Amino acid sequence: MFATPDEAEQAFYDALARQDIASLMQVWADDEEIICIAANGSRIIGQTAVLQAMRELFRRGSVSIRPVRCASTHNMMSAVHVLVEQTTERSSAGLKIATHHVTHVFHKGPTGWRLVLHHASLAPDTGGLLPLHEIPDTVH
Amino acid sequence: MFATPDEAEQAFYDALARQDIASLMQVWADDEEIICIAANGSRIIGQTAVLQAMRELFRRGSVSIRPVRCASTHNMMSAVHVLVEQTTERSSAGLKIATHHVTHVFHKGPTGWRLVLHHASLAPDTGGLLPLHEIPDTVH
Repeated sequence: MFATPDEAEQAFYDALARQDIASLMQVWADDEEIICIAANGSRIIGQTAVLQAMRELFRRGSVSIRPVRCASTHNMMSAVHVLVEQTTERSSAGLKIATHHVTHVFHKGPTGWRLVLHHASLAPDTGGLLPLHEIPDTVH
Repeated sequence: MFATPDEAEQAFYDALARQDIASLMQVWADDEEIICIAANGSRIIGQTAVLQAMRELFRRGSVSIRPVRCASTHNMMSAVHVLVEQTTERSSAGLKIATHHVTHVFHKGPTGWRLVLHHASLAPDTGGLLPLHEIPDTVH
């Protein structure tokens, strides 16, 4: 149970980093109206579909995410956070580095603050694929 | 003053269609925390910046928008709407048709329901530029 939207968001990124599907789904509100728009443009609605998409994401491999909060607005029962995420995805071709705008909406309910929407989209300063031999040592 | 999030959203699209900047800004909450992530990836924060961006949008020419609601979730003081927008932008090069995912967040405050966030991003089934001679008569 998350006492603040910040706690819920921290748990979201912690669960992503650990690839911990159970903890991740505890951040999402447990109703059939949760909405996830992924950076690839897919729109995923409802607990079952979001769970499946998160499992698929974890299966694809390791993604490192560095989130930075840019703006937020809230009232007593709702918080809107806008972040920039820099993601680094490792595959056989090299490292894919990208920058995304992310909107999170948290609603306060009987079980504390839970995530009801995640909308990610490419930001203009997106990097490309960095070949393995050009990856700085600190990223390895 | 909008009694429901739906009324506010309808007013938003009506104002866009009429290029009515005053009506458009009445839909946005009148605080410095409103957030607009445009489909081109720019992030605009606060009344002054959003007003300037909307003026710039109207100066660029005529854009026809067909919004379709896909999903929504809400509590007593917050509503999250996810829509697909098909936009048709006319320029000297032809018609540019695109499909966007759009998230709207409305918060209920002392002045009714107002828009606090608009996040638009390209959807995968985006069309390209349609040369003028290929535009069907019904769109002219």
